[in-house]
Amino acid sequence: MDKVNLDDGFDSFDEQWAPRLAAELNGQAVKLAKLEGEFVWHHHEEADELFLVRRGRLRIEFEDEDDATLDEGELLVVPAGVEHRPVADGGEAEVLLFEPTETTNTGNVESEATREEVERL
Amino acid sequence: MDKVNLDDGFDSFDEQWAPRLAAELNGQAVKLAKLEGEFVWHHHEEADELFLVRRGRLRIEFEDEDDATLDEGELLVVPAGVEHRPVADGGEAEVLLFEPTETTNTGNVESEATREEVERL
Repeated sequence: MDKVNLDDGFDSFDEQWAPRLAAELNGQAVKLAKLEGEFVWHHHEEADELFLVRRGRLRIEFEDEDDATLDEGELLVVPAGVEHRPVADGGEAEVLLFEPTETTNTGNVESEATREEVERL
Repeated sequence: MDKVNLDDGFDSFDEQWAPRLAAELNGQAVKLAKLEGEFVWHHHEEADELFLVRRGRLRIEFEDEDDATLDEGELLVVPAGVEHRPVADGGEAEVLLFEPTETTNTGNVESEATREEVERL
């Protein structure tokens, strides 16, 4: 049982769009991600995905709904199956993700952005 | 898909030791809790429980291990079955909990602090 300090966690890596594993519980993971620019459109077949912005601003675009814009201290759950695209176009955003441990960042899409393995902090 | 602003969420209630439901995903819940003073010793038979301190300081006491002290931006997972007691003796702490939705705050213990129902924000 080791605590995780989020500032230290985010300070420990630079790579963007490559979530790091901060904690696991009940088959779910808390991941830390640095996001900047536009990600790929994708969805997760089985997994709901929670985004919680720790620093900066994240816009989540949807095919069939208005975009959601998350500022610091704001969270949103994207349900399984919902096509979405995270975009951080106002500089780097630091984001906590909460999702099943095995969730891949690009969901149903295989691209150069895909990270099959999530490095532990 | 409505976003949740954590500041607004914590501002919306005063009751301590009575978590509010902020979001649900994959059978898990994000709950917001205001904690002050000592809680009851308890454990959760089946549920790992994550504490993330948003404001203030939370000490988590264990029977067989050293206490953990969480400051703002620090998180800890207490595994299922581990007896623990949350204590906030430096003033009120605002804490996010991640745990299975049906988790009861006092786990295996029935006390006046038990909240069977979790109110949605």
